[in-house]
Amino acid sequence: MHPSPRDTAVLTIDLDAITANYQLLATTTKGAECAAVVKADAYGLGVERVAPALAASGCKTFFVATIDEGIQLRSILPKPDIHVLNGIMLNTEDDFIAHNLIPVLNSLTQIEDWKRHCGRKEQVFPADIHFDTGMNRLGLTPNERFQLYEQPDLLTGMDIRLCLSHLACADVLDDPMNERQLTNFMEIRRMVPIGRECLANSSGIYLSPPYHLDMVRPGCALYGINPRPEISNPMAQAVHLQGKILQVRDVDSPMSVGYGASHKVMGKGKIATVAVGYADGYLRSLGGNSKVSIGDFKVPVVGRVSMDLITIDVTNVPENTAKPGAFVDVIGPHNPVDVVAKNAGTIGYEILTSLGNRYHRLYVGGKTKLP
Amino acid sequence: MHPSPRDTAVLTIDLDAITANYQLLATTTKGAECAAVVKADAYGLGVERVAPALAASGCKTFFVATIDEGIQLRSILPKPDIHVLNGIMLNTEDDFIAHNLIPVLNSLTQIEDWKRHCGRKEQVFPADIHFDTGMNRLGLTPNERFQLYEQPDLLTGMDIRLCLSHLACADVLDDPMNERQLTNFMEIRRMVPIGRECLANSSGIYLSPPYHLDMVRPGCALYGINPRPEISNPMAQAVHLQGKILQVRDVDSPMSVGYGASHKVMGKGKIATVAVGYADGYLRSLGGNSKVSIGDFKVPVVGRVSMDLITIDVTNVPENTAKPGAFVDVIGPHNPVDVVAKNAGTIGYEILTSLGNRYHRLYVGGKTKLP
Repeated sequence: MHPSPRDTAVLTIDLDAITANYQLLATTTKGAECAAVVKADAYGLGVERVAPALAASGCKTFFVATIDEGIQLRSILPKPDIHVLNGIMLNTEDDFIAHNLIPVLNSLTQIEDWKRHCGRKEQVFPADIHFDTGMNRLGLTPNERFQLYEQPDLLTGMDIRLCLSHLACADVLDDPMNERQLTNFMEIRRMVPIGRECLANSSGIYLSPPYHLDMVRPGCALYGINPRPEISNPMAQAVHLQGKILQVRDVDSPMSVGYGASHKVMGKGKIATVAVGYADGYLRSLGGNSKVSIGDFKVPVVGRVSMDLITIDVTNVPENTAKPGAFVDVIGPHNPVDVVAKNAGTIGYEILTSLGNRYHRLYVGGKTKLP
Repeated sequence: MHPSPRDTAVLTIDLDAITANYQLLATTTKGAECAAVVKADAYGLGVERVAPALAASGCKTFFVATIDEGIQLRSILPKPDIHVLNGIMLNTEDDFIAHNLIPVLNSLTQIEDWKRHCGRKEQVFPADIHFDTGMNRLGLTPNERFQLYEQPDLLTGMDIRLCLSHLACADVLDDPMNERQLTNFMEIRRMVPIGRECLANSSGIYLSPPYHLDMVRPGCALYGINPRPEISNPMAQAVHLQGKILQVRDVDSPMSVGYGASHKVMGKGKIATVAVGYADGYLRSLGGNSKVSIGDFKVPVVGRVSMDLITIDVTNVPENTAKPGAFVDVIGPHNPVDVVAKNAGTIGYEILTSLGNRYHRLYVGGKTKLP
């Protein structure tokens, strides 16, 4: 669907870029299965379109955070394995089974609950075990795993598919935490050798092949975020955000721009107002700290970011380029997600998941038929 | 609808608080009409529920940012005046008329376009004129208004409902910018005395009665944000965000928590993991900078905010209070929106508009019948 004259901002999501990224990651991790993390609505890019494109590209295993995300994904894709990272909560066991979802069991209590549930139903249902090796967020604690070593039959009566852990510092290539976590995980695997093993997120994939194990589960890299911050980004950009210029104003005497009168224009100049604001996920911290592109011109965002608008300095842009109705590249080839994130003082993930609902969303590429 | 066992986070929106805020603002501005700004999905709180509650409470005039927001609001409320702040864009004139929306004309070009459109249709359609008095964002520039003074018949053939301007620094009581903008706007009104006049946003209402004029248009104060940062908040809190504890972990040796191993637990302690993350609008900048409440206990958010999770230090909270399945108050009576915003280094508006889609949304209160 093409944008209508009413659209003030257009978010284009390149499904071919996402599947190309998937292919690159799968090739890089040859020998391991390459799964895909599509939690948080596929990092804000729309799981309804992203997941089928990945499935058509060969992805057979998906990870989500919440059970409701799992139920939604199951309604989109009937076949693949869907793992739910947040695990089971009281009285949700039947929902996992009804929708053919695999819970990641994060504690001994959850293991006991699932075992009890399998017993009640007299059926061996699949589940994963998450061992914490340094995040201290979710997963079995050291104490819990020692208990598990002593009572290995806690895991009987269920079908353990994966043993998981999660890297805390994988984006820093030489952080000693990475090797510590891998070594720790391998020790755990010697004690609990059932199921397949899965450790690496996007950055973990680029640490080294020993981290790949049986399965990798990239998220951010699929969506164009650089998993290797120390080198140039190997991933294709999947997001292009354009905002429409609503107005261009001539400034001919010293004056201030925006809330708090935070930006001063000292001489003659031109300010354009663009219909993208923090309600659209263009974070408020980008005010005065970021640039956007019009054609070949890169221009600064001046003044504070408003809820629905930004103001940009187009003094040096020709009048027939910076004019009402023209689109400005807010995130795109010249302003990759990672650069916008850096300017905002955050990471690309938060830029993606903050993208709002007010955009015209345009999906390009993507096979439509499952293999 | 009550939360289901599957819900990991619940966002309760108190429509009675919003309408009480509306009544307080309307009483404070007696003599002026009190409109309501419901752009950006009613500041993230859900225009489908918020706008009818406000209408039932007596609000007859609404402001939105984009024409699509106007069309959506018109489908919800057939009667009230709906003003579209971003104005007209090329080929959108018919949409305004089809949905009975009033464009805010922000430039001479837009005035000429609307006049031409009225002429073509041989009908006098309503519109507002926005004069810029210091934001330099939208609205007629000084040069443009001088042209308008010289050609007053530019405004014939259309039905001018409102003359508007927008305050840049209204949240700072004694900022000289406020009086400058009011004086400037009054000068403009002497030259263009048609239609009613509207200047004050929420903070503008609390500057002084001369700012109220014919109509005020509060936004943030309706939703519980303090319009008077220098005093205690006169507005009722409209938002209560609760996240479920997924897991509580005992820490018994020094270890790090979260991504980048950014938080160190030095001695014995307990960490709880809560199912709210930056994908839910709990901004990443809150990591290590904020508190949440469990019952009467206020506890710190430790480590980095993850996409789907936060970790909190519950060492001093009894075991039967901080347990899996218990809800934690993330935003609420003990953690008002403005405090969360301050901790995040932003303003309450951005906290509200960032609230994600993954919550169970619970609306309480609100008359259901229009008067």
